[in-house]
Amino acid sequence: MATEQLEDPKAEEEVQKVARWKMLSEAVDNGDFQAAHDILEGATVDDQRRMISLLDAEHRDSLLALLPIDEQAELIENMAEAQAIDMLEEMSAERAADVLEELGPDVSGDLLRELDDNSSEAILAEFDDTTESEDIRERVSYAWDSAGGLMSDRVVSFTENTSVAEVLTELGEHAEDYTDDEVQYFYVVDENEILKGVLALRNLVLGRRSLAIGELMIKDPASVVVSMELEELHDSFEKKNYLAFPVVDANNKLKGIVTRDSMQEAMSDTQTDSYLKSSGIVGGEELRNMPLKDRCIRRLAWLGPNILLNLLAASIIASYEDTLQAVIALAIFLPMVSDMSGCSGNQAVAVSIRELTLGIIQPRDYVRVLMKEIWLGLNNGIVLGFVLGAIAAIWKDNIYLGLVIGGALMLNTVLSVVIGGLIPLLLKKFKVDPALASSPILTTCTDMSGFFLVLSLASAAMAHL
Amino acid sequence: MATEQLEDPKAEEEVQKVARWKMLSEAVDNGDFQAAHDILEGATVDDQRRMISLLDAEHRDSLLALLPIDEQAELIENMAEAQAIDMLEEMSAERAADVLEELGPDVSGDLLRELDDNSSEAILAEFDDTTESEDIRERVSYAWDSAGGLMSDRVVSFTENTSVAEVLTELGEHAEDYTDDEVQYFYVVDENEILKGVLALRNLVLGRRSLAIGELMIKDPASVVVSMELEELHDSFEKKNYLAFPVVDANNKLKGIVTRDSMQEAMSDTQTDSYLKSSGIVGGEELRNMPLKDRCIRRLAWLGPNILLNLLAASIIASYEDTLQAVIALAIFLPMVSDMSGCSGNQAVAVSIRELTLGIIQPRDYVRVLMKEIWLGLNNGIVLGFVLGAIAAIWKDNIYLGLVIGGALMLNTVLSVVIGGLIPLLLKKFKVDPALASSPILTTCTDMSGFFLVLSLASAAMAHL
Repeated sequence: MATEQLEDPKAEEEVQKVARWKMLSEAVDNGDFQAAHDILEGATVDDQRRMISLLDAEHRDSLLALLPIDEQAELIENMAEAQAIDMLEEMSAERAADVLEELGPDVSGDLLRELDDNSSEAILAEFDDTTESEDIRERVSYAWDSAGGLMSDRVVSFTENTSVAEVLTELGEHAEDYTDDEVQYFYVVDENEILKGVLALRNLVLGRRSLAIGELMIKDPASVVVSMELEELHDSFEKKNYLAFPVVDANNKLKGIVTRDSMQEAMSDTQTDSYLKSSGIVGGEELRNMPLKDRCIRRLAWLGPNILLNLLAASIIASYEDTLQAVIALAIFLPMVSDMSGCSGNQAVAVSIRELTLGIIQPRDYVRVLMKEIWLGLNNGIVLGFVLGAIAAIWKDNIYLGLVIGGALMLNTVLSVVIGGLIPLLLKKFKVDPALASSPILTTCTDMSGFFLVLSLASAAMAHL
Repeated sequence: MATEQLEDPKAEEEVQKVARWKMLSEAVDNGDFQAAHDILEGATVDDQRRMISLLDAEHRDSLLALLPIDEQAELIENMAEAQAIDMLEEMSAERAADVLEELGPDVSGDLLRELDDNSSEAILAEFDDTTESEDIRERVSYAWDSAGGLMSDRVVSFTENTSVAEVLTELGEHAEDYTDDEVQYFYVVDENEILKGVLALRNLVLGRRSLAIGELMIKDPASVVVSMELEELHDSFEKKNYLAFPVVDANNKLKGIVTRDSMQEAMSDTQTDSYLKSSGIVGGEELRNMPLKDRCIRRLAWLGPNILLNLLAASIIASYEDTLQAVIALAIFLPMVSDMSGCSGNQAVAVSIRELTLGIIQPRDYVRVLMKEIWLGLNNGIVLGFVLGAIAAIWKDNIYLGLVIGGALMLNTVLSVVIGGLIPLLLKKFKVDPALASSPILTTCTDMSGFFLVLSLASAAMAHL
């Protein structure tokens, strides 16, 4: 009872949401954009985001254009990135430039980097202020997952000879500029913006008012360069318990700060990316309101090579047609043996990718992985081989068939876990993304070896089958 | 050349690392724990962690016991969680209690929650101070991914009538207690620790010294309750651009703070967990230095039900043995059709899981998913069916075989993407983890429908094959 009562207001809210979404769809379908706009205006950002997500591309932009630029910008900022990019590409370059200027250099840098080159050039050309567009152009040149791509340029810096009193006055007068989302550190630079030191807010507060901050600061602070890659950045945060690092260019000029928060978010994105890639969603995430053509092409890009790999495996079966013809029961067990060992191998792939991510193993640790997987493979292979072999023997009332199927599954399980464990190490060594390529390669190998083992063992035992 | 020179010191370092690790292994193998200890002492925490990770369980604990308690604690804190738990279970309860006391309530709470019940009871009994063990016991009762499980108890609070001057003096005198990893907010509570307000450090700094902080604070601040689940917590951080929320119990008593950072980390863990589960690694992550028996049993726990599902699919083939006997070439294409459509279906699963995570779709949006996937399935089905059908027709020089195989793949692709798109919604609705169950269910369905389509179409066209 109590639970039901608690859930009621939530359910009520859901009903209203659905009703609003229906009204919006209808208004859009009828071309009544004013009504649609009114519904949108009344909703929270979260609801606006959801409503817009569900619209088709054609209606989406017309509707968006009705909102003031700052609300357009807020919505774009809150969308999933893949959607935000689509929406920017639907806009005129001029309006996109206005929206991006509203969003500030770091967010716009991230978005521009993902736009196709033509659109991004067109938009950059529309910026009013050329210094700002230079700044953004520089940002776009950093990889999204480097320190330069992840940094915020909202960094607070003062020169060395500023006094504590002057800094406090500045902070008091412009308090609204130093908003919640910033780390409470100040960076000290010389007249050429070269990083000289760092100062915690609390040291500033407790310092004598007349002191120059150059005397209070921690000199030669830890910093990261714009080009530092995500993995190394993660290590830096692991080693030092900091909330943020200052980001500098090759000349030690202060360019921004990168927070632990943004590093974590990038790591989380990378995980998601691995998960999607391992399921065959490559070239960025897919959302269902993207154009059908793009979705088809991107999914086919991964399925196409898969057909070829499958043919390779099937050619093994083709070369044993006589054996199959003689013992048709084998055809029932062929997919089972290859599928079961594929599953075993994929478990080993997942463990290797995880251990690589955690830094517990390195590509050169293949002997260790090999030994660990051989023993596991033997164990699980014996269990699984015994079970499937027994089923085959009883089902077809032929002990030799059971031995062939069980033996093939056992051997193939050992092969699969060993191959599955090693593939990610090998791919990593040759700088191929293990999440993307491990599974198709593994499946082809285990299909081929599985088909070969079943059919060659069967040929050898043909007299008894 | 330049690159080679740059890489040299890194390579050199690697060589030394490997040499140290070899020396350590040898020392451990020879039972010379003093030598092993000396090697460990000289290494960085990062290297220590890696060396210890690679040792077998039996040697690991003897070696660890040689380090002082604070270094043991530091190592445990830096290990992957699954390893840290194993290591705690290897220790005597007394030593484990000492280590956990060193780590403080939030870290120990996390670890104790994951230990088996016997070990964790034994360790809790060994704590010196019963108030602290009560605190930890309370923490252990929160789910790891709830606000209570994620919060830090290192929260700085003052009562309402404390003056600004008093707070600043306290901060100045105990500056070392307010370390870098804390958010720069102060919470204001009444004498019963009921949360009354929040105060930003900068408001404190800029406030008149004689004012009571109760007059400066923001009243009735946003807070979250200990029981709030991760998803809701994520939403709260999306809505408000805060670095942290105060965490309160049902009576609004301040219990700790939960940072955006720890929420992000928990989200990232959840992603990793999904990835591992979808690859058949269930019941927590596996690392290769866990005991072989545990690894085998956990992997088999997922493979076992898979055998049954496979048998279900194989029974379809068994019921068409006559058709197969007549057209043995079908056996070559059976695994290809089921495998290719399985891949297509898995892409749809990944997109649905992603859209559910992003909150773009909800379980009730099945009509939308259905429509979107039907069109994509028809498109990709026609392309893939045409390719594989053409290959079959040319290879076996029989146009009807091509039609059977191509037609079966086309139809099965449509079925697979629709089923793949819908399964995660259905599982989510019935509160089953989509990452865990989607793939096995999908594969069984698409195997069955694939085998059925190929073999029934072939039966119908038997005269021409």
